[in-house]
Amino acid sequence: MKACLFDVFGTVVDWRSSVSRDLAAFARGKDLPPIDWLEFAIEWRKLYQPSMEAVRSGRREWTILDVLHRESLEALVRRYGITGLAEADLDHMSRAWHRLAPWPDAVEGLARMKKKYIIAPCSNGNIALMVNLAKHAGLPWDCILGAETARAYKPLPEAYRAACRHLGLRPDEVTMVAAHNGDLAAAKAQGLRTAFVARPAEHGPGQRTDLAPDPACVDISAADFVALAARLGC
Amino acid sequence: MKACLFDVFGTVVDWRSSVSRDLAAFARGKDLPPIDWLEFAIEWRKLYQPSMEAVRSGRREWTILDVLHRESLEALVRRYGITGLAEADLDHMSRAWHRLAPWPDAVEGLARMKKKYIIAPCSNGNIALMVNLAKHAGLPWDCILGAETARAYKPLPEAYRAACRHLGLRPDEVTMVAAHNGDLAAAKAQGLRTAFVARPAEHGPGQRTDLAPDPACVDISAADFVALAARLGC
Repeated sequence: MKACLFDVFGTVVDWRSSVSRDLAAFARGKDLPPIDWLEFAIEWRKLYQPSMEAVRSGRREWTILDVLHRESLEALVRRYGITGLAEADLDHMSRAWHRLAPWPDAVEGLARMKKKYIIAPCSNGNIALMVNLAKHAGLPWDCILGAETARAYKPLPEAYRAACRHLGLRPDEVTMVAAHNGDLAAAKAQGLRTAFVARPAEHGPGQRTDLAPDPACVDISAADFVALAARLGC
Repeated sequence: MKACLFDVFGTVVDWRSSVSRDLAAFARGKDLPPIDWLEFAIEWRKLYQPSMEAVRSGRREWTILDVLHRESLEALVRRYGITGLAEADLDHMSRAWHRLAPWPDAVEGLARMKKKYIIAPCSNGNIALMVNLAKHAGLPWDCILGAETARAYKPLPEAYRAACRHLGLRPDEVTMVAAHNGDLAAAKAQGLRTAFVARPAEHGPGQRTDLAPDPACVDISAADFVALAARLGC
């Protein structure tokens, strides 16, 4: 085993509370109607998979996630009837995804794993998003891999295969780490090893999905990134 | 200015003495005829530009540098009449380019620049080569950009343009750093800022090229990476 690839949104960083907090802080400086920004963040995330599916299916040419996030934001702003936002405001709001907070164990766990393995995101986020997020959250990646370097969105096979190929490694030399069994099932199908870390607060209280690893696709699981580092001998 | 891109071979690392030392150490464990490994390294490097030119010109489909390095090595091994090397030996020798030593000021200078700017290679080396080299030499890149992410070898315009685009930045928000005026001229033509750091020992004693910045294409110059960091306010 030579490298660990990581899902990022939900697995490394807490998008739900970060995006809602970021937008609420931004709104306080603006003359906006009262909005439930937590609900807004959740609605924004609901547009994530459909926006990528247009690209995955081939209905739409390759488009990076920053553009999809921005389009989804504009649709939501219309739906909520928010007016008076300048282009610069929408730019700033859209880049809330560049300013997500890591789960408390993420940075320490990544730093430990980095001593023994190559560590890289394998996220649907584009390169600029991942670089800015790493700067913001202190994520010590060795390189940025994922949808933009693969020109394919997970869970398409090419997203995982390209990441291994770009590292010059066989899939069985690479472990995919995620809090989502579906991501790990797709990685496993391409021959990668898989590690599950539960993030039971990703979707807030009452989360029902991905509370436990699916033994059909998960090789190892750990309570958090520091425990995962220990399991991997780091 | 938000990011610094770096040429790597010659600018960040000393390929000439590193490759020759690496091959000489490897040869000591083998039953090989006496070979001048410094000359061998220089001859290997002479095949670098022609091998990329086949790709740049479109005569050959996109091929990463690890493959070109390996093919050039095999050609040289035949020319030198070296026999008895196994595939694993050629693999190891070819990956001498993954084990280059940084110039003494490089790591400290990069670490300082990283505090204020995004730092990334913009090298003709492929991603795996750059990642392994960073691990070996302690280069603290924020991400790996260059020929493989651009699918274009420098000095083609797309090599520089793709690096800026992947960072979500305008070219005038990016500084290209190199010890080679030709690289900087090509970057300047795409609208990047340019910084020259002389590496008068890259080609050994008696080097005649790139001893000084060309004012036609160089915005700033510095004696080494630590001085460059200071010039950039880091």
